[in-house]
Amino acid sequence: MIKALDNSLSEAIWNKINFKTKPLGSLGLLEHIAHKVALVQQTLEPTLLNPHLFVIAADHGIALEGVSDFPQEVTYQMVMNFVGGGAAINAFSKQHGIKLQVVDAGVNYPFETALPIIHGKIGLGTKSFLKEQAISEKELTAAQELSKTLISKYVQSDCNIIGFGEMGIANTSSAAAMMSLVCLIPVSDCVGRGTGINDEKLHHKIRVIAEGAERAKPFIQNPADVLLQVGGFEIAVICYAMIEAAKRNMIVLVDGFIATAAFLVAQSIEPNLIDYALFCHQSNEKAHEQMLDYLKQKPILNLGMRLGEGTGCAVAYPIIKSAVHFLNEMASFETAGVSNN
Amino acid sequence: MIKALDNSLSEAIWNKINFKTKPLGSLGLLEHIAHKVALVQQTLEPTLLNPHLFVIAADHGIALEGVSDFPQEVTYQMVMNFVGGGAAINAFSKQHGIKLQVVDAGVNYPFETALPIIHGKIGLGTKSFLKEQAISEKELTAAQELSKTLISKYVQSDCNIIGFGEMGIANTSSAAAMMSLVCLIPVSDCVGRGTGINDEKLHHKIRVIAEGAERAKPFIQNPADVLLQVGGFEIAVICYAMIEAAKRNMIVLVDGFIATAAFLVAQSIEPNLIDYALFCHQSNEKAHEQMLDYLKQKPILNLGMRLGEGTGCAVAYPIIKSAVHFLNEMASFETAGVSNN
Repeated sequence: MIKALDNSLSEAIWNKINFKTKPLGSLGLLEHIAHKVALVQQTLEPTLLNPHLFVIAADHGIALEGVSDFPQEVTYQMVMNFVGGGAAINAFSKQHGIKLQVVDAGVNYPFETALPIIHGKIGLGTKSFLKEQAISEKELTAAQELSKTLISKYVQSDCNIIGFGEMGIANTSSAAAMMSLVCLIPVSDCVGRGTGINDEKLHHKIRVIAEGAERAKPFIQNPADVLLQVGGFEIAVICYAMIEAAKRNMIVLVDGFIATAAFLVAQSIEPNLIDYALFCHQSNEKAHEQMLDYLKQKPILNLGMRLGEGTGCAVAYPIIKSAVHFLNEMASFETAGVSNN
Repeated sequence: MIKALDNSLSEAIWNKINFKTKPLGSLGLLEHIAHKVALVQQTLEPTLLNPHLFVIAADHGIALEGVSDFPQEVTYQMVMNFVGGGAAINAFSKQHGIKLQVVDAGVNYPFETALPIIHGKIGLGTKSFLKEQAISEKELTAAQELSKTLISKYVQSDCNIIGFGEMGIANTSSAAAMMSLVCLIPVSDCVGRGTGINDEKLHHKIRVIAEGAERAKPFIQNPADVLLQVGGFEIAVICYAMIEAAKRNMIVLVDGFIATAAFLVAQSIEPNLIDYALFCHQSNEKAHEQMLDYLKQKPILNLGMRLGEGTGCAVAYPIIKSAVHFLNEMASFETAGVSNN
């Protein structure tokens, strides 16, 4: 279980924030970020140590239903691009000293074992959720095991902040179906253009997902059923890895539409997770705003990105650092000799 | 004169952006930032070198009309806080390696000459624009001279990106009056709570500014008259320094409400300035959104801050860096062997 945060320090943290040399509340969202990080770490002097980011890749049976403009092999091609250092997430992780690790959770391609990725292949992609359950019980157990391994084996012990990115052609379809089933919002309001499909394809995508979600609905008894019915391997791994990270008291960085879909299920399983989470970027994928509203969360950034890979986490990271810096480094009215109003 | 940008490279820059390994347009605003920086620098491989930030402080006669909760001496106290390293802008500049310099453009306090600030005192604060012209012609000339000195003498030659912050109790009143006179928007829509005044003080503030703007209106023949009538020393210096920086082909970082008021006048004088400017943060000061709409600009951040000091510029700086990094470091579809749609 993720432990509920001890709120007894909350007021002292707000006092520290409010006596900094600035008008009350004038650092806006940075103040709330600083407060959250301090409360998770149970200290008035929080630190961000050794940030990690996993990019988790897997394929989706639903990709074969024509819901994306890109062919399925782009998933493995992009894994190779991550390894080669040529993707957006490589540039942004490097910029901020974030340790980036690429995970094969189920890409439909036999990667060589020598490749510097974490080999966690659960299967060669999910089944098409239009026609059948996407993930088997056994595969979901494997996803849980992989999540535990990632956090226990591939994260250095002093790391206290972690993000999760994803790569998987057609995974916005999976995420949209999950959103509809968890939030009870009509599929048509959950579907966007993903990598950029046109109107005709969008209508087709909505039909496919609506039919898949309808098929799945009778089987949904608990949050994990959503993953089984319409989820993806990378989404399931992200879901359980977020929970594992919060259990170890890490700040969990939530990326865009797909990572937030994983979060929706994770939070249904572990309601305390939200106290450890920072929502990094509001995706340009239309339905993400509604997801964030459902969770009552304000994202740090809104740059109109819709790329996934954890790019929102990486680009938002320096803003979170700014929050921690002001809390630790700014003078108070008293020490600076500035008149308070 | 600020030279008009040569647009002949524009298409080549967009091509470079569009063939990166990502769906078309999926890096959102980062793509537009990258394009702007590349076009200003007339290269497909832009760089950000030696970022500078001036925090320019001055006092305002209008402060004596009860428009702010803070007493005027907070301006000089905050200058001392900047020098001591205890303000928010100190923390954020240090985080990003931005060279921070503090300028006294007219604080009502006799700073010791040994103090590590740039001594550019134009006067001991402006006159109250409620009753008379805030700045004399001679003082405005001094502000122009100071701007030129800042850019020519205090900026290292390889610096190609610069931000401007301000400190001056009651300067939101000056900025609101400027906004009303330049944008022809009623004063009541230009005034916010500044450092955080209550309803009663807000009504008083609106009355004072409306009366001051009404007094000034007959004297406004050209953009500089707005500075003379209702401006501030730090606002005038920022206005002309932005122009000087753009003349030297620097990217100009525009901070919040007050810096954007300076920009409004600067752009009226030099319409090409806008091609060199990045709007860093939409202030929580209510009217800033309308100012940005007037300029048809989308800010990089919207963190609900309202502190000034150039904090928006500093906090947004890593985002601008991310834009430059993706343009320089990401692989193209061709070099990475990723299928394009």
